[in-house]
Amino acid sequence: MPYGLHSPIIAFMSESSSMQAVVMEGQGDGGTLSLKVVPKPTPGPGEILARVCTSGVNRADLLQRRGKHPAPEGWPKDILGLEFSGVVEALGADTARWKVGDRVMGLLGGGGYAEYVTTHGSNVLPVPDGITEHDAGAIPEVFLTAFDAAVLQMELSDGEVMLIHAVGSGVGTAALQIGRALGAVTIGTSRTPEKLTAASALGLDDAVLADADWPEKVLSVTRGRGVDLILDLVGGPYMEGNQRVIAPRGRHIVVGVPGGAAAQIDLGAMMLRRVTLRGTVLRARPVQEKAILTRAFEDRLLSFFSIGELKPVIDRVFPPEDAAVAHDVMASNKNFGKLLIRWE
Amino acid sequence: MPYGLHSPIIAFMSESSSMQAVVMEGQGDGGTLSLKVVPKPTPGPGEILARVCTSGVNRADLLQRRGKHPAPEGWPKDILGLEFSGVVEALGADTARWKVGDRVMGLLGGGGYAEYVTTHGSNVLPVPDGITEHDAGAIPEVFLTAFDAAVLQMELSDGEVMLIHAVGSGVGTAALQIGRALGAVTIGTSRTPEKLTAASALGLDDAVLADADWPEKVLSVTRGRGVDLILDLVGGPYMEGNQRVIAPRGRHIVVGVPGGAAAQIDLGAMMLRRVTLRGTVLRARPVQEKAILTRAFEDRLLSFFSIGELKPVIDRVFPPEDAAVAHDVMASNKNFGKLLIRWE
Repeated sequence: MPYGLHSPIIAFMSESSSMQAVVMEGQGDGGTLSLKVVPKPTPGPGEILARVCTSGVNRADLLQRRGKHPAPEGWPKDILGLEFSGVVEALGADTARWKVGDRVMGLLGGGGYAEYVTTHGSNVLPVPDGITEHDAGAIPEVFLTAFDAAVLQMELSDGEVMLIHAVGSGVGTAALQIGRALGAVTIGTSRTPEKLTAASALGLDDAVLADADWPEKVLSVTRGRGVDLILDLVGGPYMEGNQRVIAPRGRHIVVGVPGGAAAQIDLGAMMLRRVTLRGTVLRARPVQEKAILTRAFEDRLLSFFSIGELKPVIDRVFPPEDAAVAHDVMASNKNFGKLLIRWE
Repeated sequence: MPYGLHSPIIAFMSESSSMQAVVMEGQGDGGTLSLKVVPKPTPGPGEILARVCTSGVNRADLLQRRGKHPAPEGWPKDILGLEFSGVVEALGADTARWKVGDRVMGLLGGGGYAEYVTTHGSNVLPVPDGITEHDAGAIPEVFLTAFDAAVLQMELSDGEVMLIHAVGSGVGTAALQIGRALGAVTIGTSRTPEKLTAASALGLDDAVLADADWPEKVLSVTRGRGVDLILDLVGGPYMEGNQRVIAPRGRHIVVGVPGGAAAQIDLGAMMLRRVTLRGTVLRARPVQEKAILTRAFEDRLLSFFSIGELKPVIDRVFPPEDAAVAHDVMASNKNFGKLLIRWE
């Protein structure tokens, strides 16, 4: 297969020094997105060059358009996109693990909305057997984020109860599957009944409509005990409820705050229950730290995709010229699971 | 020495079935304290009976008098006191480590303001060589709390910067010594200049007066980098400042909230810096968990007392009939280090 992919015409194209990409211009009230021809990146030492099949759209991309989530040092500033899946096209020095034609996916610090990306070989994963390299674009950011937050950082263990807010989001649908695969009980909230139905079909144990009574419902479902872990994709507005439903020694990790960052907390309640609250981001981490996460995910979870225990959840796939439409869908919270941009 | 302590007269007294204790009556607006004769406890399986030399006074005792910090199941409800030092007087079954006459100290769930206490042998420490069994009463609660919070839970490591609020308190003076002994840089705040002077004499690296500008001073002392760990003995009023001075991947552990439990936080700032905030208490932990802490403290820190790197800091010692006076001193924040009640 690796050689078969490289017909003379494709080889000629790949040697071209330019590529198409969705380029952002302007910021502040909102950068505009347009498809342009830009220079194709070249892999440096330790890096691979990948031809992109699909690029995932993330909420952070919307923030970056508003000037609120700039690309870290060393990544493209004007091309959004935090993840990709595709095929290895060329290798820099010291990339012994990979070869041209390998099906790969991974996190990026930016630059994902493009026909080609370069990234460090240590931050790349093989596309699991049984998953197409197009669907795989829905895996890296949400599954690595959920795994890192719930499992590596907060040590979710077998039999614990995990509450996932905004369970219909990309990270939410990944988290519920990971929780289920690892033997946890999962409770998910959403303001949209249809998303709860879809999450239940994916294996969510308890679906809770996020109206004013959600804390009572969560307490009722757990027979008053509360939850061991909260994976929070909402933020401030749910804090009071979160403090009510968290069990002794509970851990609460904040992965996104689309509902607002300001929160009122009761430190005395946190003391009595010995609660841990942590904020986390992936994007700005150094390549070495992302490599540790990437390998831990590969070791513990990648095989679950091949046996169907974990699956990418794709809401819709857009052509590159409709990247702004994909953003509008995400901004209106209409998607269940991932939105992808498809390049080939 | 162990045998010399047991003259026939003392042996006779120890066989008496009663003892003196500071007993609390009433609650709500404030339980009253009075010296009374009460039944002497008997050691159960795994427990020791100790004759108490000194009982430490803790802020939690003041809360308990106001009905806010009840004794956990299985501990005296009407005798305050969370720690003791003294001498082993009798042993229950399965207490192979200890023998009558051993100089011991330890945490209690309650009942410390008394001539005799019983506690599980696994929760007891030897009084270090070179420390009297009277001074040792100033060790358990504050040193174990600071060690547990900063070292075991928040993994303070060599070269990190620890900020200690209310550095003149019992836990504060213990934390600064532990931080120094383990190679951390310590910054302490207090509203009282004299306490800062005394803390500096104990080895505090940077003393910061807790006026409105304390966050700027902490940032200045750390050349803008901020602090890796905050040991918080104040609570809500300092939260905004704490969020400004905490470094990336910083940890903030709340051990007491005399300043107030309500706090306003910015979850977005916690995400960007990947901050951890945790509340903790020792008292309500099960005996097995306290045993693990007790042994970790013995292994890692007890020898520091014998070489003078750690020392109990005692503000004043009171006779049992003045327990309420000791509480008034603590309530007015006048003490630097520990207040003790002496029984013999």
